[in-house]
Parts: sequence; structure tokens; C-alpha cells
Amino acid sequence: MNDILLRALARQPTEYTPVWLMRQAGRYLPEYNATRAKAGSFLKLAKTPALAAEVALQPLARFPLDAAILFSDILTIPDAMGLGLYFAEGEGPRFERPLRDEAAIARLAAPDPSAELRYVLDAVRETRSALGGRVPLIGFSGSPYTLACYMIQGSGSDDWRRVKEMLYARPDLLHRILEVNARAVADYLNAQVEAGAQVVMLFDTWGGSLTAAQYEEFSLSYMRKVISQVHKAPRIVFTKGGGGWLESIAASGCEAVGLDWNVDPGEARRRIGGKVALQGNLDPAVLGAPPARVREQVRNVLDAFGAAPGHVFNLGHGITPFARIDAVEALVDEVRTYSTRLRACPD
Amino acid sequence: MNDILLRALARQPTEYTPVWLMRQAGRYLPEYNATRAKAGSFLKLAKTPALAAEVALQPLARFPLDAAILFSDILTIPDAMGLGLYFAEGEGPRFERPLRDEAAIARLAAPDPSAELRYVLDAVRETRSALGGRVPLIGFSGSPYTLACYMIQGSGSDDWRRVKEMLYARPDLLHRILEVNARAVADYLNAQVEAGAQVVMLFDTWGGSLTAAQYEEFSLSYMRKVISQVHKAPRIVFTKGGGGWLESIAASGCEAVGLDWNVDPGEARRRIGGKVALQGNLDPAVLGAPPARVREQVRNVLDAFGAAPGHVFNLGHGITPFARIDAVEALVDEVRTYSTRLRACPD
Repeated sequence: MNDILLRALARQPTEYTPVWLMRQAGRYLPEYNATRAKAGSFLKLAKTPALAAEVALQPLARFPLDAAILFSDILTIPDAMGLGLYFAEGEGPRFERPLRDEAAIARLAAPDPSAELRYVLDAVRETRSALGGRVPLIGFSGSPYTLACYMIQGSGSDDWRRVKEMLYARPDLLHRILEVNARAVADYLNAQVEAGAQVVMLFDTWGGSLTAAQYEEFSLSYMRKVISQVHKAPRIVFTKGGGGWLESIAASGCEAVGLDWNVDPGEARRRIGGKVALQGNLDPAVLGAPPARVREQVRNVLDAFGAAPGHVFNLGHGITPFARIDAVEALVDEVRTYSTRLRACPD
Repeated sequence: MNDILLRALARQPTEYTPVWLMRQAGRYLPEYNATRAKAGSFLKLAKTPALAAEVALQPLARFPLDAAILFSDILTIPDAMGLGLYFAEGEGPRFERPLRDEAAIARLAAPDPSAELRYVLDAVRETRSALGGRVPLIGFSGSPYTLACYMIQGSGSDDWRRVKEMLYARPDLLHRILEVNARAVADYLNAQVEAGAQVVMLFDTWGGSLTAAQYEEFSLSYMRKVISQVHKAPRIVFTKGGGGWLESIAASGCEAVGLDWNVDPGEARRRIGGKVALQGNLDPAVLGAPPARVREQVRNVLDAFGAAPGHVFNLGHGITPFARIDAVEALVDEVRTYSTRLRACPD
């Protein structure tokens, strides 16, 4: 197996910098759009293990990536809790039954992954089997706080007003939701590992909407709970907008910290690079540019991280539908060739 | 005159912490909505100096704030350049004629504030006169980069795709726009000061969408140009999402740095509090909470900044239409009473 991702996460020396891309199976790929059309919708695609495995492997057929990631959604857990996940055309995720009263919050319980989330575990098994050991498979979930954001608000939001209302007026209710979510995420990630995921990642997409003190209380402390219960695979924590809190994220017990593109890689390296591996952090918008520009930006990112072990190349956020295929090709190729040179001759 | 804001910006000791709120004349105030209805639209309100002065003074009639801010929009300059600013109902600002080709960019020129932006200068004069010396008047503009974002994209955006496309593929064009914008913003702020503004603020709302290196190249360097040309009033720079770059913002030549709510105030104080005054940074969402919670959060912010001179209390972003009047009352009252105590007995 190509285990370069696993070695980089363990901060062991590697011949080159491993690379994968958040949302690498996505709408920028025509073959993805074809399979999605066949499935009928994003959610049906994610809930049909054979098709989920099919799209998870599509980017690997095009690009020499060093990892596959489970094709799924960050919000499967609240869906399994009965909140009714759906996607309105051209919009983000929504819930039919967001948490609107204390009774609903009191009733909330962690789902049994082997029952309500069986389709995800089947997708993990099918994807792992289809990979045939070529590269490691990454499993994932939304973080407890990010799940709570959608569960309370009912949709994405610029200001997460309902969530903040609860946070300020009834923090006890928010803590109750987060307790259940942390339990659920830990069970879910353990089940993914059991089913074949070799790395797990927590997507804390909305932790960055909090103050520093709130981030510790409402997001990071619950991610720590998850991490302390998920032992059997390396754990990556990614808080978008969390650049101010890298030291505490690095001290959460995870093996690697994901960085968004606002973070200066050299500074991140100095701050926490000795304690954990770092993943990131090319601006996804670069992939709308011509290949020569992409290569230039890739080299900037690689130079900034430096030649020491413990870097996993990725974007600073998910790839967009506007990414050019030739730009992605250039990215993956440049990471491989330039980082090989960088590691062979660090100066 | 109540000059406590000016003294705080000069980091001189004050009896209490001055307070004003970004977008303090706004839709959370019924009297604002009444005047706006009379004007017909936000833009007509902003373009009618007598009404702009009227709404600028409304929050002062309700709350003992320590500053007034010009009622205007951050995008008046590109409107004066002929791009055609408008607001679709329930949406953010848009331009009828965004910059879509090289010819339009080549034609771009800084407007003459005393001609195309005369209505703003009249509003400054009317507001200053109506204030009768009670509190200082703050003038403002969008930053060169934030103006460019809307000028290129044509509207607000989650990813500023068109802007990033230009940044990566044709940085020369973006620099040309930013050169013109920096000239225009400097002329405009100088004209505002000439007309009576006693403090000026640069709103760099979208600088935080850049990488660290791009922020320096495309946003901060042009704000430095502006600052170096605007001498006659204290200058506040606010980059939303700029918490990672506080040291370089503080070294830009400005008197004060605005902080969004993600930044830990104590840490900001340690990093740059000895060099500039700090403004911020209560989460605007707090103002949806009951007054007792607001007071608690205000005390947290004041404690975190500490008793040393050089703090201007504000929100970490503009006040929203959902702010409760009783919450704003509690905020302003708590800042005054608690900071008076804090400064009298720092321990």
C-alpha cells in the first residue's frame, strides 16, 4: 500500500509530500456529475454504498492522489437522529425538523451507527474493498459544534443567529446537544474505523464563528471528548477560521491539524509543527487559474511548510465546482515533483 | 466636547472606556426605519444629507454613546466612479456595471470628492453641525481591497471567485484597480476630515478572505498608502478576519486597530496593545440575548482588554437588525459603569 499519508501523519520522513483534496470527489468532475445524475440527488448518491464507493474512487483514476476519502456528508448524524436532512436545489444543507424546543433537545439521542448509519459503514466497506489497498481511506464527521449549528439553525447561516441565541440565553441546552453529539460522533467514527477507515477527520466548519473562549467551551472541548474515545486511527482536526487557536487545537490529542488558507504555513509550523502534523492549505480559488499559476502557488505553499516531515498537502477548504481539471492535474503533479526535490535537497 | 474617544485613540488615560457601535444607526431602531421609509430606500437616505444627519444622531438620543459615525455606505467611491451601486431588496450591495474587461479598468479614475461625492461631504457637515460638539464624528470608507472585491465581483460573495481569478491570473489588473482605489480613498477621507470628520476608519471587510502573503500585497499595502496620505485625524483600521495579522496591521501607521470577535482581546493586547489603541470586540449576536447576559459578556470583554488606556469598546462587526433595544441599553450602560470601576480600581 501507498502508506505515505499515514507516515506523514505520524511525522515520519517521506520521499515526497502526500496530497489529497477536501471534497476531491465533487462537481468539478464530469464523471461525478454523471453518477450523481444516475443516483438522482446528492443524498441518494451518498446513501447508496455502491455509488458512493464509485465516486470516491473517481478522482484516483485521474490523479495520483495519496488518499481516498469516504463519500458522504458531514451531517449524516443529525439525519440519523431524525432531523430530516435535505438539500434544496442550489443551496446548502437543511433540516426538516430543526431543534426548536426543549422537549426535542431532551429527546435527542446518539444513533446506533450499525442501524441508522449502516449505509455509511457499508460505503466505507465497499470503498475500502474497491481501493484494494492502493491508498488509505479517510473517514470523517462534522464536529459536535458544527452539527449543532445546523441542528439548531436548520440551515447554513451568515450569523448563526438561533445558535448564538441559545448559546447566550440557554447555554445548558447547547451543552446538552453537544454532549449527545460528542457521544454520537465518537461512536460513528469508531464504527467507520471498524468498517475500514484508516484515518479520521473532524470537520469543524463553523467553530470559527465563535469567540476564543466560546471555541474552547463549545467546540474544542467536545472534539477532545471525541478524540479521547477514538483511538485506533490517526485523527485530523480542521477548524475553518481557527488560525488563532492552533496551539490549543494541537494540544487536543489529535495527530494532525488542518489549516485554512488564511493561516501562514511557516507561522503554523513554528507554532505547532513540532507537536502535530499539518494539513493544508492552498486557497481553493487557485484552481480557477491557469496551470502555470497553480504550480507557482503550490510551490509557495510547499516552501512555506518547509522540508521537515509532517506535512499533508491539501486545500484550505473544499474544492469548488469551478476547479479546472487541468489545474488539479497541475496541483497534484507539482506537489509530487517539487516536494520530492525539496525533501532531497532541503536548501 | 466629550473627547474621550479621541483620548482613548491617543492611548491617554480616560475615566471610563468610550463606546460606539459599528452601524449604530441601523434597522434595529424603529426611528431609523421610519426615516428610511420616508426617504424611500437606504441609498436615498444615504444620499440625502439632512436625512443622513438625522439618522446618524438617532442612536445618540437613546444611548449615551461616545461617538457618532457618518451615515453612509462603504461603497460610495465605486458608485461615484460610475459603477452604479444598488441594493436588491433583502440582499447586499450590487453594482450595475462591475469591472468586466481591461478597457473598463484602464478607464478607472479616482472621483473628485467635492463633485461626485459632494452629498457625503454635505452629510458630514450637517451631522457635525447637528452634533453641536457633543461627541466626535467618525468618517469612513471601504478599504481599497474591499472596494475592489465588489467592483470586480459585482456583489457580495462567499468565495469572491471573479476577484480571485483576477488575482491569480492577472494580478497586474488588480494592482491597477487598487492603485486607483487607494488614491480615491485617501482623497475621500481627507475631504471628509476637511468637512468635519474627527476620526476616520477603514473598513476592510474582505481582507480576511486572502492568504497572509496576499493580504500584505493586495490589502494592507494599499491601506498603508491611504494612511500615509491622511494625516489630520486619528485612523482606525479594521480587517474582519485579520486576527492573524495584527502585528502588521498595527505597524501600518494607524492609531487604532479594530478587532473582530474571534480575536482574544487579552492576546491582542499582548501582541499590539503597546503600539496602538484597540477597538472592539463583542460578538454582535450577544445583542439578541437578555440584558443580564449582555452585561456579563460586556464585563468579559472589558476584563480581557484590561484597565490600561487605549481601548474603544465596540462590537466585533456591525450591529444586526435583530439587536434588542434593551440589550443595546444594557451594553452601553455596562461599559460605562463597569469600566469606570475597572479604571478606578484596576485589581
